[in-house]
Amino acid sequence: MKIIKLGLGVTSSNDRDADALRDIMRSKGSLLINLMSSPGSGKTTLLSGVINDMRDLRIAVLEADIESDVDAVKIESLGAKAVQVHTGGMCHMDAGMTTEAVRAIDEECDIMFLENVGNLICPAEYDTGAGLNVMILSVTEGDDKPLKYPLMFEKSDAIVISKTDALEYFDFDIDKCTERVRKLNGNIRIFPLSAKTGDGMKPFENWLREKLDEWKTK
Amino acid sequence: MKIIKLGLGVTSSNDRDADALRDIMRSKGSLLINLMSSPGSGKTTLLSGVINDMRDLRIAVLEADIESDVDAVKIESLGAKAVQVHTGGMCHMDAGMTTEAVRAIDEECDIMFLENVGNLICPAEYDTGAGLNVMILSVTEGDDKPLKYPLMFEKSDAIVISKTDALEYFDFDIDKCTERVRKLNGNIRIFPLSAKTGDGMKPFENWLREKLDEWKTK
Repeated sequence: MKIIKLGLGVTSSNDRDADALRDIMRSKGSLLINLMSSPGSGKTTLLSGVINDMRDLRIAVLEADIESDVDAVKIESLGAKAVQVHTGGMCHMDAGMTTEAVRAIDEECDIMFLENVGNLICPAEYDTGAGLNVMILSVTEGDDKPLKYPLMFEKSDAIVISKTDALEYFDFDIDKCTERVRKLNGNIRIFPLSAKTGDGMKPFENWLREKLDEWKTK
Repeated sequence: MKIIKLGLGVTSSNDRDADALRDIMRSKGSLLINLMSSPGSGKTTLLSGVINDMRDLRIAVLEADIESDVDAVKIESLGAKAVQVHTGGMCHMDAGMTTEAVRAIDEECDIMFLENVGNLICPAEYDTGAGLNVMILSVTEGDDKPLKYPLMFEKSDAIVISKTDALEYFDFDIDKCTERVRKLNGNIRIFPLSAKTGDGMKPFENWLREKLDEWKTK
């Protein structure tokens, strides 16, 4: 079998903007969490569960999409503040775009989620200025994804393995996936859960609380 | 709710390369089919089914991935010719990259599939030089995807709604999805199927044969 390697030069000039946004968020005591995944892996369903379970915290959501506002409408129906960002075809959010979106939230909040554009590739290449990077991998997508999209796994602080209620239906080996992820990123936290049934949500939410405390105190 | 529109200027200079590749493929009597979808929606499983069912045709596969060769290894194990393309981080294939990959297949074939990088956004923006564009949407991803990623649906000649064996497990309305797709693209063919059970594969495969005949004769 032949293997062809095609070259690519990616330059990122947005690291300074990202650091500046982190400074702003820290001074406000707000933790910005960048949530990345494939289309349809359950970002909005996860956020809906978190918002419902953590009513003691002030949570806002920046919804980034190529088009439509279906996710932002869902989030607002839960009583959380939401801003819809239309990326105009862009396949990821960068720090400048995120800063603009953050400015549109005019209330104080504890956690601000950035629901990035559904894409396992480009969002991993741009620092958005978030304090935490979390990716979701649905059990319906297959346990080989760390082999194919390694950068996303390397850049994330935690991975949520979602839709575990459908595990019996799909050929997804959590242990094998965990092993592949750990080879790329030894420090990553892994949370298998089902936002639909609520199973496994608590450990993830406790981790969010820990990270928020760390962010506010360090 | 606030809606922010961010600008984007995309210029594509590869349309000429794409037309040139189509001319080459037509002169060889080979139909190149660009297969696009999210990560994990079942491109390789669909191709495995097609290769097994259509042994009378000479089929080759160009496997485009950021990294790894797991898909190409699977395809070769079925006896089809496969070339692995590593895109070096690139989130899509363009016509130049595709031409290079096509050259690496040194045997005559009837159908050449390009399994594009798993991504619903960027691949839709680049003409690869394929004679047909087919996208896969898995029922696990949700029926709202035409609202969020319209360009992919506009650019495709057919959409395969995959993993229909898991329909009872997921909140996916095929009629609603069909209606949303038709609003974007009135001419698109829609094939709900399960490559796992084989259910619905026949109409899709018959359509491939029709399109191959058209390609060879017109």
